[in-house]
Amino acid sequence: MNWQATVLTLFPEMFPGPLGLSLAGRALEKGLWTCRTEDLRQHGLGRHRAVDDTPFGGGAGMVIRPDVVDAAFAASQAPANVPRVYLTPRGRPLTQQDVRRYAAGSGVLLLCGRFEGVDERVLQAHDVEQVSIGDYILSGGETAGLVLLDACVRLLPGVMGCEESGVEESFSEGLLEYPHYTRPAEWEGRAVPEILLSGNHAAIAAWRQKQAEEITRERRPDLWSAWLARKERNMAEAVGGAAQTDHFGV
Amino acid sequence: MNWQATVLTLFPEMFPGPLGLSLAGRALEKGLWTCRTEDLRQHGLGRHRAVDDTPFGGGAGMVIRPDVVDAAFAASQAPANVPRVYLTPRGRPLTQQDVRRYAAGSGVLLLCGRFEGVDERVLQAHDVEQVSIGDYILSGGETAGLVLLDACVRLLPGVMGCEESGVEESFSEGLLEYPHYTRPAEWEGRAVPEILLSGNHAAIAAWRQKQAEEITRERRPDLWSAWLARKERNMAEAVGGAAQTDHFGV
Repeated sequence: MNWQATVLTLFPEMFPGPLGLSLAGRALEKGLWTCRTEDLRQHGLGRHRAVDDTPFGGGAGMVIRPDVVDAAFAASQAPANVPRVYLTPRGRPLTQQDVRRYAAGSGVLLLCGRFEGVDERVLQAHDVEQVSIGDYILSGGETAGLVLLDACVRLLPGVMGCEESGVEESFSEGLLEYPHYTRPAEWEGRAVPEILLSGNHAAIAAWRQKQAEEITRERRPDLWSAWLARKERNMAEAVGGAAQTDHFGV
Repeated sequence: MNWQATVLTLFPEMFPGPLGLSLAGRALEKGLWTCRTEDLRQHGLGRHRAVDDTPFGGGAGMVIRPDVVDAAFAASQAPANVPRVYLTPRGRPLTQQDVRRYAAGSGVLLLCGRFEGVDERVLQAHDVEQVSIGDYILSGGETAGLVLLDACVRLLPGVMGCEESGVEESFSEGLLEYPHYTRPAEWEGRAVPEILLSGNHAAIAAWRQKQAEEITRERRPDLWSAWLARKERNMAEAVGGAAQTDHFGV
């Protein structure tokens, strides 16, 4: 069974878009995944197929109606068991762990909002996860949906070839990756760090670890604190383990 | 002068992609922004136009060569004064503040990586900002670039119409936005919260504030802590201010 992406959107022609090319595009051609869209406009009301209305309680912007989204859900024929995800800056942050969970399942149903957002009741009725790809505002959920699908598709079995499969998952150890260097060894007066040419694998590994730690501390104080805390916990456990061994006298 | 986006990529046909439609697409047609691409492959070496090579120091994956990226920089003819941004999970997180800064300038130059990444020296040589759109791994920087451009373009003068301009910037006060409701007032047995129909503006504002606080606490402990700290600081300053007034006796 291939992995099924279903997208509810006002702009179905945005999909698969960039995912019709390169790695995801080849996987699409091979049938490793499918990308269906359901046009919210088709479920709009009246002669103008209105999908939105003014917010109760006042305020600027328009809100997408629950009945319109509900009709699109029904028409989409997405498998009942796939996660339903609404892309919104109000959601919890998307992580690589979520991506792995989505990719391990049989597909995902994405709801792409526009305007001020979607009526909250239809999200509750369909048990929709609210997910944010980052702390910035987009013109709609579509580019966020492309990002989420890109992240999932590369993890599907058979999608990554030799060229890509070597890519370390930058967050697997909770540190950002060390910097990369390739040929030429000297370029415009800039030499590759000498240690990388030494052939001393242990020294290279130690240098890379130090670089990863420095970059993480500088760019991601949040990840750095979490990493330090984890390290401290592990050391405490190791000491506890040693003490216990002593206590029971091996 | 229009806002100029320049994208260095191995997949120029991915741009403007979804940004050729809807809000960004209309702005593109009106000439409010331009989207130029520079194909890294055109600057590859040898008969096969190789752009990458193995990493110094060993390890899986391929790294994009500094000379190839440098040639693409030169050929792109991007204005000298625009920010240069490399999209990578190793970067600092993209924020709405960055987006505002980019949109306020004359454009942006994006470098989209593939494989294991780009040689670090060319990033230093061109004073490139390393930016991440979130903690997940993509097949390349292209979908991330589309997200960054989407966020910038909607802020350009003349791009947002009445329909969109009302959208509150969800992070302006450091809390996630309250939930939205629109017609019908009762849908599938689910009623809109009564307070929103009361016409009592002060009560509605208080309810929305409480909702925003609860959603933020639940979904974004990081934003919630920052918001609490800011609130405490403001209160301390207010008390300090009052004490000072007393001291000088008005």
